Amino acid sequence: MDEFSLIKRLTSRGKSDPQVKVGIGDDAAVVSIHPRHDLILCCDGMSEHIHFQRDTMLPREIGYKALASNLSDIAAMGGIPKFALVTLSVPPAWSTKELEEIYEGIFDLAQAFKISVIGGDTIRTTKDLHLSVTVAGEVEKDKYLLRSTARPGDKLFITGYLGESAAGLHYLLAHGRKNVGIDDKYYPLVKAHTQPFPQLIAGRILQQTGIHALNDISDGLASESWEIAESSGVSLILYEDQIPISPLLETYGKTYGISPLDCILYGGEDYQLVGTFPSCLEKILVNQFQQAGFDLFIVGEVKEGPMKVVLIDRNGNENMIEKRGYNHFSE
Amino acid sequence: MDEFSLIKRLTSRGKSDPQVKVGIGDDAAVVSIHPRHDLILCCDGMSEHIHFQRDTMLPREIGYKALASNLSDIAAMGGIPKFALVTLSVPPAWSTKELEEIYEGIFDLAQAFKISVIGGDTIRTTKDLHLSVTVAGEVEKDKYLLRSTARPGDKLFITGYLGESAAGLHYLLAHGRKNVGIDDKYYPLVKAHTQPFPQLIAGRILQQTGIHALNDISDGLASESWEIAESSGVSLILYEDQIPISPLLETYGKTYGISPLDCILYGGEDYQLVGTFPSCLEKILVNQFQQAGFDLFIVGEVKEGPMKVVLIDRNGNENMIEKRGYNHFSE
Repeated sequence: MDEFSLIKRLTSRGKSDPQVKVGIGDDAAVVSIHPRHDLILCCDGMSEHIHFQRDTMLPREIGYKALASNLSDIAAMGGIPKFALVTLSVPPAWSTKELEEIYEGIFDLAQAFKISVIGGDTIRTTKDLHLSVTVAGEVEKDKYLLRSTARPGDKLFITGYLGESAAGLHYLLAHGRKNVGIDDKYYPLVKAHTQPFPQLIAGRILQQTGIHALNDISDGLASESWEIAESSGVSLILYEDQIPISPLLETYGKTYGISPLDCILYGGEDYQLVGTFPSCLEKILVNQFQQAGFDLFIVGEVKEGPMKVVLIDRNGNENMIEKRGYNHFSE
Repeated sequence: MDEFSLIKRLTSRGKSDPQVKVGIGDDAAVVSIHPRHDLILCCDGMSEHIHFQRDTMLPREIGYKALASNLSDIAAMGGIPKFALVTLSVPPAWSTKELEEIYEGIFDLAQAFKISVIGGDTIRTTKDLHLSVTVAGEVEKDKYLLRSTARPGDKLFITGYLGESAAGLHYLLAHGRKNVGIDDKYYPLVKAHTQPFPQLIAGRILQQTGIHALNDISDGLASESWEIAESSGVSLILYEDQIPISPLLETYGKTYGISPLDCILYGGEDYQLVGTFPSCLEKILVNQFQQAGFDLFIVGEVKEGPMKVVLIDRNGNENMIEKRGYNHFSE
């Protein structure tokens, strides 16, 4: 099911709304509502057995992550989140205590970023727990970042290690969340999966510097790079020897026989950012990220079309990168 | 499960946000974002087997109604809806054609009220179809309507016939949606259930006139009156002989042995408005509703506390009205 093509066909029916600056198709929508600020709106759903299981995440983490994935969308627009609304659909198998923990996870993260939870709907359902979170944020008028504005000659960057969330999920599926304590050797991988840190501060640095394109990494580097390539009409070149692999992911890969590069390209839910900037901004961005204590890795470059994503491996060979992304528990 | 008490406890943890004028607890939230307008935000979820069944609603109607219930919340604040976001969770049993019809139902209603659908998330789920819709709207600065501002001496009114949706559902559960055509004698009751018309125009007339309190009727007149009584700290008196019963509901009740008054008080999803205004506004409101071609029925009055809802029946006897509301298919 290609949600975008269906929804785009339907949205194109009506008259276009001059207040809507960015509609469906980017990380979030942007609407004009103020002389100096634009309003950013996004929503993201999470469904039991698809995006999480009782075995892989604690209730508090489920709440946290539902909000975090939305904050990541706001970060990818270069915005500041302000307000959140939550729809929680609850089947009989979940206790009141667990629901409280889910809400606590939401409120903990909201508080950390000074976001007000202003609305919600709690409804019953028969089988799977569902969360849908909407976040409203703001950004300086017309200064939001898109995925469609990468230009040939740009550097391609990411804001942190990737693939750890996929490895964390792999570990959780084998051991169960309740059997992994914070002193577990692989807890940092588990935490990358269960409590991803939304890159809002990085997003603001990038927005203030005026980079070209930005996208958040919810579905793996391959899929998100393809989104930039297709919406910008460019090709992206990734260099394997520039893609950082966290030491723990390296160790985990060797121990459990999984490929760190596969986790990075096709694993999901890292919630780092991927984007492009003109070379002239490299020095200032590297400096600013260093001062803020955040990572910035340059992993490739942007070339003119045809639209594609290519990985140059350690032997200098060109490998076409598939468009496929992350499919949770289904495959 | 009392969602409000849990969420209120959690929201009270953080510092209060001066931008939030109305948080959780009314029909929608109101935040300050513009010198002349306030932003209204609300979200409402619908879950298969709880709020609808394949037997009771067509896919297009499911989409329509998910948006309509949110528009009703905006109407109850006296606002104008502007933008909508949709999270749709889809189990394998629903076809692409059905999903398209759900979205078409959403877009049809959006177009009718000049609302732009600007975002969404389509995710998979294992069993029940879920929709969560968020609507953003606007209202003149500080001129939103609340349910907590009814005052002793006010008249209590509703904006249309109630109970038809509950009777429509009763009919649908016996006959199935696919067996009820538009030429069916009881189709208007079915339509009240499957395609409720959100009272946005009435809401704006009431807002412009500056009435005291307003609430939308999603859970029956009893429950919504209780909400006004409790949040305003007043008692409400309903007069049975002033509560209008639609001729078709009257006929239906006689034929099928159900009480129209029960449908009105305890049936849900009529999406009319209930509110209160000072007597001095009666003449102008009656005129304005007449000119606009909308109904306005005065059904009771507001007295000083203790908080309660009372029905004076046709014999002049006082009956305490229970707080219970509408519980869909579960009871």
